[in-house]
Amino acid sequence: MALKVALLGCGVVGSQVIRLMHEQADDLAARIGAPLEVAGVAVRRMGRRRDTDVDPALFTTDAEALVTRDDVDIVVEVIGGIEPARSLILAAMNSGKSVVSANKALLAEDGATIHAAAKANNADLYYEAAVAGAIPLLRPLRESLAGDHVHRVLGIVNGTTNYILDKMDSSGASFSDALEEAQALGYAEADPTADVEGFDAAAKAAILAGIAFHSRVTAADVHREGITEITAADVASAKAMGYVIKLLAICSRSDDGRSFGVRVHPAMIPRTHPLAGVREAYNAVFVEARSAGQLMFYGAGAGGAPTASAVLGDLVAVGRNRLAGTRGPEESTYADLGAHAMGETVTRYHVSLDVADKPGVLARVADMFAKQDVSIQTVRQEGHGDDAQLVLVTHRASDAALSATIEGLREMDIVRDVVSVMRVEGEDAS
Amino acid sequence: MALKVALLGCGVVGSQVIRLMHEQADDLAARIGAPLEVAGVAVRRMGRRRDTDVDPALFTTDAEALVTRDDVDIVVEVIGGIEPARSLILAAMNSGKSVVSANKALLAEDGATIHAAAKANNADLYYEAAVAGAIPLLRPLRESLAGDHVHRVLGIVNGTTNYILDKMDSSGASFSDALEEAQALGYAEADPTADVEGFDAAAKAAILAGIAFHSRVTAADVHREGITEITAADVASAKAMGYVIKLLAICSRSDDGRSFGVRVHPAMIPRTHPLAGVREAYNAVFVEARSAGQLMFYGAGAGGAPTASAVLGDLVAVGRNRLAGTRGPEESTYADLGAHAMGETVTRYHVSLDVADKPGVLARVADMFAKQDVSIQTVRQEGHGDDAQLVLVTHRASDAALSATIEGLREMDIVRDVVSVMRVEGEDAS
Repeated sequence: MALKVALLGCGVVGSQVIRLMHEQADDLAARIGAPLEVAGVAVRRMGRRRDTDVDPALFTTDAEALVTRDDVDIVVEVIGGIEPARSLILAAMNSGKSVVSANKALLAEDGATIHAAAKANNADLYYEAAVAGAIPLLRPLRESLAGDHVHRVLGIVNGTTNYILDKMDSSGASFSDALEEAQALGYAEADPTADVEGFDAAAKAAILAGIAFHSRVTAADVHREGITEITAADVASAKAMGYVIKLLAICSRSDDGRSFGVRVHPAMIPRTHPLAGVREAYNAVFVEARSAGQLMFYGAGAGGAPTASAVLGDLVAVGRNRLAGTRGPEESTYADLGAHAMGETVTRYHVSLDVADKPGVLARVADMFAKQDVSIQTVRQEGHGDDAQLVLVTHRASDAALSATIEGLREMDIVRDVVSVMRVEGEDAS
Repeated sequence: MALKVALLGCGVVGSQVIRLMHEQADDLAARIGAPLEVAGVAVRRMGRRRDTDVDPALFTTDAEALVTRDDVDIVVEVIGGIEPARSLILAAMNSGKSVVSANKALLAEDGATIHAAAKANNADLYYEAAVAGAIPLLRPLRESLAGDHVHRVLGIVNGTTNYILDKMDSSGASFSDALEEAQALGYAEADPTADVEGFDAAAKAAILAGIAFHSRVTAADVHREGITEITAADVASAKAMGYVIKLLAICSRSDDGRSFGVRVHPAMIPRTHPLAGVREAYNAVFVEARSAGQLMFYGAGAGGAPTASAVLGDLVAVGRNRLAGTRGPEESTYADLGAHAMGETVTRYHVSLDVADKPGVLARVADMFAKQDVSIQTVRQEGHGDDAQLVLVTHRASDAALSATIEGLREMDIVRDVVSVMRVEGEDAS
């Protein structure tokens, strides 16, 4: 008896899922214990030329009828976005289907509702493809590290922004030129907002934090800054100091373990750090756990075939569970930790100031940092006269203290401009 | 109702498993759905001072009685070696227990028997800790990549040899000095044979190949060469050419997909390759799959706490399965591929020859390579007169062709000595 699979969406990922289901049919059947069969493919409009060899009779625009059809066992949702994805997933679960989804936005916005429906219906919900494409990350976090205590998850989880920042770093291009190139090559969408403003990475960070800390985390818990304001000068200045700028997603427990912070923002990391070597649209994620120590996962974070690989891995798991009459691990939120405010985040900072070139300036600037208890690690003067800039790197300090320092600096007559403030990550120095 | 766990072994790993079961008792109970309880700990001799806070009454020397005790649910085997581990695991399964093991030697030697017993008794068998310590590798290969087609697994899976080779590379030390240092620091055992001769890596390679290729693979299928003959001169020569020598485990499908090769041997890799940056006792493994592309997993490959992390992850999975009345994925050997002979392996080679310094030598040497259809990529003469050495790097060729070439070279009067032959991996150039 074949397991019947309904697909929602037949775009870049969906068409690859269908192709691989056909090409690898024998292997998938052997691994699951029963063949998979495409029961139907829901699309928005009929008649578009599609890059698949699916029997045209399988296409339908009535997604709701498809996901509730009696003969369907598993629903694969690869349309993305909140609606109609959420309603369709809920309808599928309420009629006893298991679900494989790649929908990071929905899981980060309203994972609670979806997980509750899965539980209520004793249905499976798998979504490895939602974070970091083909890189096995959610399953290792949820299962392999189930006996460990995760302190921190830190990584590059958005390929588009990594491609742009990598181009800026390697060629000296401006943000807009690098974005244009990424768009021309298909790495960035026509409307790049979700990527360049960090929404995509923030959704992934919320999902990672929820699993890592066994708590409920939504996109609203994530402090989010994009990369649109990174200039060629920022990149060049970082380069000159031995750093590279990356858009990082960071989920970290507070020192007392009672809360966590989740943030997505550009940061400077040392060029010697393994994440600095992550080029083009690749993704890489560090996981730091009490017993396991530091682990790294690296690979293609997006693209049709890599994402389809993750979807199919989930499909095999769901298929096996279905045949065995069981289901995979459900959502784990027992720890019920809360996100702390961004102000409580502790890290290091790189600050560039445009200052008046007269005696005593450094002392007064240093005093402003000291007043907020922000300790300075290095300070360097660049240029002279009207071009004088002070470049400071701090020891670890809270975001609140640093913000107060910056506010104070802006009000000083000797500080003509706060040119840039960037967090520094990936160094052990405190 | 608590799940009762019997431990076989209380050494470096076992004592950490016990410690973490106590320290993380609440978390483990929440994640499993029931608390874990240590039912007993089998040791070889009573009375030794042990680094645990286990109630002394739980220790026993009667391992067989412990694993068959009615109240025991799960057996954790961390004694290693073939016997008595195999008999105890079989006895445990035959009396309905699930098993978590870290025993790479046993699984590579006789995994078939253990897996058959697991299946016959509907028992779980998990062994993530057997390969690459805390790095989630077996679960991602078996589950996350279950919908993909793995071409190749290539990596550093033995921390001891990586520590020794890293020391040789960074300090110019000889093999024996680096080994001595590794022993002094606890990275190598008093009898280092299993590590330095590649037995440990070969067992891991067999396990990885079996899972990656859905076939039965044993240690006997693995071509194995250790690092004891690597000299400081080899390391220096590799360094001068921009390479570093690593002990690699490589599992690869043949081009026609009908067989595979598994091998463990030292190889030169470019210093720009990510594996070149794996220092000290760390492990890192690349997995290349048709749809996922290239993935890398990195972390601590050994040590008490990291290995215990992997054991506990499995313990949580087994505990959940037990409560749900189900079991995890069983051994998958349906593809039933066979290992091809080492001679069929195709790779590149670095060959150093001590040759007579007279005209026509290069032409005659090149001719010997050509006769075996081994194409030369670069050739370089080092030194002059009596010290003249020819250093050649080949394009991809079969191991059989290269061996025949070397045999032919040895018989040439102008070749005074074949100084070294080393495989070159991690380059795309063909």
